[in-house]
Amino acid sequence: MTQYFDALDTRPPGERERDLFRRLPAVVAAAMRSETYAERFGAIDPSAIATRDALSTLPVLRKSDLPDLQRKRPPFGGLSSQHPGRFARLFTSPGPIYEAQGLSADVWGVARPMHAMGFRAGEIMLNTFSYHLVPAGFIMDAGARELGCAVIPAGPGNTQQQLDLIAAFRPTIYCGTPDFLKIILDAPTSGRDVSSIERALVSGAAFPKNLQDDIARRGIEAFQAYATADIGIIAYETPARDGMIVNENIIVEIVRPGTGDPVAEGEVGEIVVTTLDETYPLIRFALGDLTAAIPGISACGRTNMRIKGWMGRADQTTKVKGMFVRPEQIDSIGKRHPELLKLRLVVTRSHDADAMTLACEADRPEEDLAPRIAETLQMVTKLRGAVEIVPPGSLPNDGKVIADERTLT
Amino acid sequence: MTQYFDALDTRPPGERERDLFRRLPAVVAAAMRSETYAERFGAIDPSAIATRDALSTLPVLRKSDLPDLQRKRPPFGGLSSQHPGRFARLFTSPGPIYEAQGLSADVWGVARPMHAMGFRAGEIMLNTFSYHLVPAGFIMDAGARELGCAVIPAGPGNTQQQLDLIAAFRPTIYCGTPDFLKIILDAPTSGRDVSSIERALVSGAAFPKNLQDDIARRGIEAFQAYATADIGIIAYETPARDGMIVNENIIVEIVRPGTGDPVAEGEVGEIVVTTLDETYPLIRFALGDLTAAIPGISACGRTNMRIKGWMGRADQTTKVKGMFVRPEQIDSIGKRHPELLKLRLVVTRSHDADAMTLACEADRPEEDLAPRIAETLQMVTKLRGAVEIVPPGSLPNDGKVIADERTLT
Repeated sequence: MTQYFDALDTRPPGERERDLFRRLPAVVAAAMRSETYAERFGAIDPSAIATRDALSTLPVLRKSDLPDLQRKRPPFGGLSSQHPGRFARLFTSPGPIYEAQGLSADVWGVARPMHAMGFRAGEIMLNTFSYHLVPAGFIMDAGARELGCAVIPAGPGNTQQQLDLIAAFRPTIYCGTPDFLKIILDAPTSGRDVSSIERALVSGAAFPKNLQDDIARRGIEAFQAYATADIGIIAYETPARDGMIVNENIIVEIVRPGTGDPVAEGEVGEIVVTTLDETYPLIRFALGDLTAAIPGISACGRTNMRIKGWMGRADQTTKVKGMFVRPEQIDSIGKRHPELLKLRLVVTRSHDADAMTLACEADRPEEDLAPRIAETLQMVTKLRGAVEIVPPGSLPNDGKVIADERTLT
Repeated sequence: MTQYFDALDTRPPGERERDLFRRLPAVVAAAMRSETYAERFGAIDPSAIATRDALSTLPVLRKSDLPDLQRKRPPFGGLSSQHPGRFARLFTSPGPIYEAQGLSADVWGVARPMHAMGFRAGEIMLNTFSYHLVPAGFIMDAGARELGCAVIPAGPGNTQQQLDLIAAFRPTIYCGTPDFLKIILDAPTSGRDVSSIERALVSGAAFPKNLQDDIARRGIEAFQAYATADIGIIAYETPARDGMIVNENIIVEIVRPGTGDPVAEGEVGEIVVTTLDETYPLIRFALGDLTAAIPGISACGRTNMRIKGWMGRADQTTKVKGMFVRPEQIDSIGKRHPELLKLRLVVTRSHDADAMTLACEADRPEEDLAPRIAETLQMVTKLRGAVEIVPPGSLPNDGKVIADERTLT
């Protein structure tokens, strides 16, 4: 059993970084041939976008903005200049967001993560993700087919028929949500044997510790994949179980929610992905999920960046006294007061009214700092709030720019 | 617009026949490497199976026998010697019958029929056949992808979401059952526009004249395909609308129901298909459907054999006075009396009891023929019945060996 999918798994990190950023300018140039990127990027020189710092100067593209963009410029929001009939398949996801599958085999990069999970050619995989309307089933199908596995395209539901197929074909691999794996394992089998399943790729839902333990007790090695309908597999667990390895051929940044500014290594922030696909480029695509990079390299020998799993949603826009307050606004307050290190707006309930306190980390603050910030806070949000100056490092590392601590009754 | 998919569409029929039967011996040899064919074919020499007459000496494989065969020798009934993990995808159909997709692109031969229906590269196809558990969705998907069409894998159901996708991507092609096309066209669209659909491949259900007229009135050209989960597209309509053209790379025979004996051209019988696929060969696979060959060549220029559409189910096994009577038994009566041309057992109800009459076509019959046949009838079926000798050509051409004319009350 070959341990690695190919030499890319283990190349020196600097070599990977040079490779990704050598390829990026052509993708940026391709992006600028489509309407929306052309407007957003303005007069930049694509050939200059050849470093992580240069990339971080480009505007982020929020996934939550796609429904509006696509309504305005159907079907792909002016982010691809290719006619939809030239893609392989066309999908929708809640939003609605319309998605496309490019022409290359395993365009979503799934074979490598599956290989890391121990899936091998000639194995049979039960794929319980849906193939209808959404891309999930095809994403996993493409990876397994690329590896040389036979796929049972089962989709979700029809548990009894799935049990028949498991008994008939004895698949060794399960692919789907962790919850549906439990449904299959717990179903009354009426003599049918589901013990053939040895390994699983689970995704699309939380995989809490008690369920992990339950699946492991049944002798199944389940690995999580962090995947999205737009990109495919972004990061995945390996037998080392020391975080999720970022996939090849994508650039991952972690930014302060509501901004495009990269956070310090280890700090929780919003995950932003850049793909290297010229037919439908996603440049600084902000997924709305929180995560954090893990320093160092995995014990499994794969050398790519590692991230923690899903740590919550990054969109912290909230309503205070009937007015929207956005993470972008808190960020702009920070930018007006360069002496501030980190900010966190805490929203509470006091005397039957909303209240807010802006906690600001500052090193050796001047005396009038708090009142000056309070003024900025009111100007930016049109709302009054308290300001509290705290020592550097005292705010929690949880990616929260706005912490809504009101208890809903 | 190129009219033909390739030169095979229009080659001289004799050339096609020579090509198919030149390739057949290798397929028969491959079949004999699997257990069940080895048992059924016995000591035959595969190289001798190089003509239509030689093929007609091999036993037919009834689709209705597959569930038992597969139970005995899972998963494929001993008809393929390849490990299931080496196929592309694995499916089930009612029965249950387990099916496999081979590795080659468009292994089911769908691109050619779609091309004949006017589908072209760069078009968008809404595919409403299911991709879950059964092969239907993948069969049509493979053909469209091979042609270079983008596919919306919609599956059946979720009509409102399908309307969203039609409005967003404006597919020109529909693929699915005729009934579901009507559901989509009749659905309240709430302002969404479904007028992009221009052409349709319909299959999997009857397409009655009034529904054909309804679809045509809406400006959609719908073509029927006769397809099965095991083989793919067997025959298809073309713009000539003069029957269904048999697909390339398969051999179609039409036999007397319950036998493997080819009927005369034009006579209604059971369709039997031989594929030229060495990994999962189907040799003389009797589908259980009635059809008839149409003499001559289509006005569209395609030179392959033409058949009428689906003309009913071929399995005429029926219960008379509590005993099963099978078409095979009627055939064996005919074989014992070589002077008979065609037989038809008519089952009726008389004085609150089942009654049967065996109608036999005979040219200049001897006087004691009827009583001799009556004796054979009783010996073979263990049931008494009347015998009626009729002139040649007087029995209807409807493929019926047993006509159950009892009215169910």
